[in-house]
Amino acid sequence: MTKSKDKIVLIGAGNVATHLGKAFVDNGFQILQVYSRTEDSAKQLAEKLQADFTTDLERINREADLYVFSVKDAELTDVLENLPELNGLFVHTAGSVPMSVFADYHAHYGVIYPLQTFSKIKEVDFRMIPLFIEANSLEDESRLRVIASELSDSVTVLSSEKRKYLHLAAVFACNFVNHLYYQASQILESQDLSRDLLFPLILETADKVKTLHPLEAQTGPAVRYDTNVIEKHLQMLENAPEQQEIYRLLSDSIFESTKKN
Amino acid sequence: MTKSKDKIVLIGAGNVATHLGKAFVDNGFQILQVYSRTEDSAKQLAEKLQADFTTDLERINREADLYVFSVKDAELTDVLENLPELNGLFVHTAGSVPMSVFADYHAHYGVIYPLQTFSKIKEVDFRMIPLFIEANSLEDESRLRVIASELSDSVTVLSSEKRKYLHLAAVFACNFVNHLYYQASQILESQDLSRDLLFPLILETADKVKTLHPLEAQTGPAVRYDTNVIEKHLQMLENAPEQQEIYRLLSDSIFESTKKN
Repeated sequence: MTKSKDKIVLIGAGNVATHLGKAFVDNGFQILQVYSRTEDSAKQLAEKLQADFTTDLERINREADLYVFSVKDAELTDVLENLPELNGLFVHTAGSVPMSVFADYHAHYGVIYPLQTFSKIKEVDFRMIPLFIEANSLEDESRLRVIASELSDSVTVLSSEKRKYLHLAAVFACNFVNHLYYQASQILESQDLSRDLLFPLILETADKVKTLHPLEAQTGPAVRYDTNVIEKHLQMLENAPEQQEIYRLLSDSIFESTKKN
Repeated sequence: MTKSKDKIVLIGAGNVATHLGKAFVDNGFQILQVYSRTEDSAKQLAEKLQADFTTDLERINREADLYVFSVKDAELTDVLENLPELNGLFVHTAGSVPMSVFADYHAHYGVIYPLQTFSKIKEVDFRMIPLFIEANSLEDESRLRVIASELSDSVTVLSSEKRKYLHLAAVFACNFVNHLYYQASQILESQDLSRDLLFPLILETADKVKTLHPLEAQTGPAVRYDTNVIEKHLQMLENAPEQQEIYRLLSDSIFESTKKN
């Protein structure tokens, strides 16, 4: 008979908790309870995961093997201050918060950081998401590795120090990239052109990183130092000073990176 | 018997000429000749396309139905000044150059602008690339539409004025995005972490634009206005002033776009 899987409480009901919770359930784990400060959020996610919910830290279920904290970084210590005595393993899911945040509050703790962007209404294949784990003892690290490996094919032990750089890189490669998609959409919408026109270009640009280093993959006016086109583009952005500043800074930076290499 | 397909001369042997030339050949067109100022480039592409080559504008083949100009924007008028008398249809492939660049030189002209990023060593599925066409007469527009439709499933007539905005949007969505991939790679490489770790995140971020508007798809510290994380990240970039400036500008811009909407 196989050992039954860990029972889990989710602290937080945002995008990360939603996708992680679903991955747990899909892989046979039981979510006992979802906690959120907001009743609607707690209830909604709990229903999806066939779990109980609470908005009261005093009522957190004490039977769980694993407590997964997916709350805003600033909220985490607040939650920890107000938790009752619990026995399970504590993990958070944040890129920029060191594991040591738990040290003053609990004996067994660690991190499961999924390197992915989650939106509630967009499905993702969780098995493809790289999970970065860390724990304060080798024993708990092994436990976490077993748990994480049930969810994803890519599990790596990574220190808090390295993880924070990984998170910083992710902000560039995901959040900032998405903001450039937004700027591009704005430009097209201003001309009554559909942003759909850009999809093949966006996908190919992303796909290229798998075969080419971004330095080799670069194309366009800045890498050619085509000042003629660059000046025309800056003029077109005369009435959009924010986009103009982004255009200037990134073009200069592309040019500098080409020179350096 | 079907009419035989147009015979083509390629003026230029860069990334666009390479991929477009290959698409022509794959679809049964004959490339008569490749011109480039650089003999190596002309020869290399000509061999690939089983065409002749020349570096001498005087020796441009006069039998072609279609002359495709894929040279740097600044070089185009130079080339046009020095061409012998020719009969075929002239088209260029540039985003930012108005069709009227041909007006002083030729009677039949237009544009085929492929909205894609091309690197010589990376294959692309040309049928998926949106082609934007324009011509100085309805008759030539029809001819171009027939030709372009042989190469791609997506052919749209677009004016020079709109095309230049499409090109500007493409610089944001492709060249600037790729530069952020580069910055992210730099951050990872500085920590001896592989840039491969980011692939699933990069692909999902790109994939999201198909189902979510980038404004809804946004995640991360800036959209949450998580000043705690933002300050930490800016500190981590103390010794990389260029990345720090990009970080600050894009985070502010994300925050502004959230407020506005």
